[in-house]
Amino acid sequence: MGSNLARNLASREGNTVAVFNRSYERTSTLLEEHPEAGFVGASTYDEFVASLAKPRTAIIMVQAGKGTDAVISELASRFEPGDIIVDGGNALFTDTIRREKAVRETGINFVGAGISGGEEGALNGPSIMPGGSDESWVTLGPILKSIAAVAEGEPCVTHIGHDGAGHFVKMIHNGIEYADMQLIAEAYDLIRRGTGKTPAEIAEVFAEWNKGELESYLIEITAEVLKQVDAETGLPLVDVILDEAGSKGTGVWTVQTALSLGTPVSNIAEAVFARGLSSHPEQRAAAKGLAGPDEAGRIPADQVDAFIEDVRLALYASKIVAYSQGFDAIRAGAVEYDWNIDLGAVSKIWRGGCIIRAQFLNRIADAYDETPNLELLLSAPYFAEAFTRAQAAWRRVVVRSVETGIPAPAFGSSLAYYDGLRADRLPAALVQGQRDFFGAHTYKRIDKEGVFHTLWSGDRTEIATTPSTH
Amino acid sequence: MGSNLARNLASREGNTVAVFNRSYERTSTLLEEHPEAGFVGASTYDEFVASLAKPRTAIIMVQAGKGTDAVISELASRFEPGDIIVDGGNALFTDTIRREKAVRETGINFVGAGISGGEEGALNGPSIMPGGSDESWVTLGPILKSIAAVAEGEPCVTHIGHDGAGHFVKMIHNGIEYADMQLIAEAYDLIRRGTGKTPAEIAEVFAEWNKGELESYLIEITAEVLKQVDAETGLPLVDVILDEAGSKGTGVWTVQTALSLGTPVSNIAEAVFARGLSSHPEQRAAAKGLAGPDEAGRIPADQVDAFIEDVRLALYASKIVAYSQGFDAIRAGAVEYDWNIDLGAVSKIWRGGCIIRAQFLNRIADAYDETPNLELLLSAPYFAEAFTRAQAAWRRVVVRSVETGIPAPAFGSSLAYYDGLRADRLPAALVQGQRDFFGAHTYKRIDKEGVFHTLWSGDRTEIATTPSTH
Repeated sequence: MGSNLARNLASREGNTVAVFNRSYERTSTLLEEHPEAGFVGASTYDEFVASLAKPRTAIIMVQAGKGTDAVISELASRFEPGDIIVDGGNALFTDTIRREKAVRETGINFVGAGISGGEEGALNGPSIMPGGSDESWVTLGPILKSIAAVAEGEPCVTHIGHDGAGHFVKMIHNGIEYADMQLIAEAYDLIRRGTGKTPAEIAEVFAEWNKGELESYLIEITAEVLKQVDAETGLPLVDVILDEAGSKGTGVWTVQTALSLGTPVSNIAEAVFARGLSSHPEQRAAAKGLAGPDEAGRIPADQVDAFIEDVRLALYASKIVAYSQGFDAIRAGAVEYDWNIDLGAVSKIWRGGCIIRAQFLNRIADAYDETPNLELLLSAPYFAEAFTRAQAAWRRVVVRSVETGIPAPAFGSSLAYYDGLRADRLPAALVQGQRDFFGAHTYKRIDKEGVFHTLWSGDRTEIATTPSTH
Repeated sequence: MGSNLARNLASREGNTVAVFNRSYERTSTLLEEHPEAGFVGASTYDEFVASLAKPRTAIIMVQAGKGTDAVISELASRFEPGDIIVDGGNALFTDTIRREKAVRETGINFVGAGISGGEEGALNGPSIMPGGSDESWVTLGPILKSIAAVAEGEPCVTHIGHDGAGHFVKMIHNGIEYADMQLIAEAYDLIRRGTGKTPAEIAEVFAEWNKGELESYLIEITAEVLKQVDAETGLPLVDVILDEAGSKGTGVWTVQTALSLGTPVSNIAEAVFARGLSSHPEQRAAAKGLAGPDEAGRIPADQVDAFIEDVRLALYASKIVAYSQGFDAIRAGAVEYDWNIDLGAVSKIWRGGCIIRAQFLNRIADAYDETPNLELLLSAPYFAEAFTRAQAAWRRVVVRSVETGIPAPAFGSSLAYYDGLRADRLPAALVQGQRDFFGAHTYKRIDKEGVFHTLWSGDRTEIATTPSTH
């Protein structure tokens, strides 16, 4: 990804790009393979730093972790105040906050920048989410704008906020990506097992969906993956791939962070757990033979189209929930870390270059344009209308998954979250009662201010009290 | 909780207990209120330490966090090698690992001990989960056994494993507690809104359930809470309590830790998220008016009993999932941190004293007695049989929640997890295909060893490769 990003940079008018790798062999291979880029190859840090115009700007693309710290330290010891070090990897945002603070003391700017788009995005235009200081953005902004994807005429990059804000938003982007992929996988599974259509036939369904409100990169590539035939066996490739999904950490980080922020990201969590479940073959083997429902018949031929439309609507509604939860987590993170994040701008830079790019993000941008401080994305008028249109279908699809035993954890969880938000009263009141009973955790009342405790092991009268601190 | 634990200790034959608090006023109040305990009150650390017999044993009960470090440091500077410092609070297990390591260098034993049972358990017999060294257990074991709850003739304490194992297991205990409470809350809500029964009538249902396989402390106190009438309004107390559930961190820690371990704890996560959702009144207000299903009629009177039995079975099945996921997390933690944890022993010490104490834990103990290295608790014969009995009812209940819009996230998530484990093939294969498409993340095949990548942006042939490291 680093070399592709360098080639992208070098291809823009006026840019000369110096490249450096711990292994000079890699550097010289890149120089040989891409003479058109006019790279300046450096074999040492000193040479690399000496070759940069001031203020110097270096973009680090190494694996997250200690390697990043080592490279930062090498550069920081040679850079001067006003120079800029950019970490373009998937660093954990709290590491970025720590690094920015340490580097800032030297007067050098440190910018954690999330970059999404995979290998191809890096080359042709990714979506870029830089954090860091306002000062760094003055120099860095034009550089990043020159290489970013363009959507609706605007470059897919904006200054997210100071220190770790960029990596934070990139992390949430990846969390949403997990959710979106899981939802698509559930839609595929329900159609496959419900209708008996082949993967190639389902590819056509997704290609068709890609012309409507679900239009997105992930729907597009799902069609490509589903129509792929394995050369060796002649089977659909998806039937030959081992069904154990891996992960690289950002999905886990998203859920862990949202938990700390008190933001329910159940859709993303179910997606992460579904991958985890799939990757325990020994447990799946142990579960063979557990009771399931009676064999569900296929959906009658004359109802297949209606069922597929139901699944499309269920996917759309669940997707709104996933994005709403993700934007919620950004909002909560901005409060916690004192970032001034423009949620509308975030949705706009995700419209191009990145993995979750989609038409749909225009609707999110509209929602935040209209109400910048929207408390709950999914309650925006456009989405409220979508739920009105979709909710009955959504329920039918989840009911079918439950009755036939075809797991749809993210569909189901999204719907339960939606119904939870809608509820006039939640049984959380009972939970508060239980907590007060066994732990004297106290409760509030609906009819007056204050904090109360019932003397459960005494005479069961209620006393006004202060919240427990243990 | 600290004073109750001290009174419990003092009440056992042969024990003399010294007590110390930063505020001597608190200490003297305790001495005055409980002359029967024969406490030795200390007003300084020096006095406290001088009053202890060797090897000295001190149990710290302070709020988790920096306060704990301060107290440890005061004690450690006065204790001698072989003495024992016990942290009986809800410390994060990684803090306990760090503290144990630091204190061990002085030759003093540091033991993180989880203690469950609330105020009353502390006084009359809690369930205790000590970590720490084997050496410490020699002295500490008899002391803890003397104050622990007793279940089926055995004290509810066992040496869980070294360093942070005790606090780790206590954390998972609390995670399971969250899940159990949420499941009970969903059962209550479904019955209440489905049948129109009053809280007092539902209290009777829970009291009845408490005589069967659901028999547990949480079911018992649910009946108590539901039958409580608010003196001021004459309404059921549960209708007067504000329906926003709080939390104290251990549920969040459980899910965050399980995520790091790759263990799906979806049931516990949904319980934590349900509390989070309930505590966002501004979002719940924004969601008012979102489309829901047509008004669901009440369940016909002649079907109410059958419905309640369905809910009971759904609760039981979901509860098996919650405990299975929790024990999974303990197993995974034991591997990660090199603890030799006896899962059967854990289930036995949870049978008394603690919040999740239940008949049901005997079944778990049986399962681990039979197969100590059980890969998946819920696949044990007794539970497999329970699912055979319960799964149709479980599905009916989740279907009803979906169709009527009464949220049951933990019921639904548990069932989806169960069906996910049972599935012959999961759409995780499609997820792997997508990941390979956009990120060259590679995939495995079902028919041969190795790691593969399709050249998606090339000629779409497949190549054998090595797993991506970025």
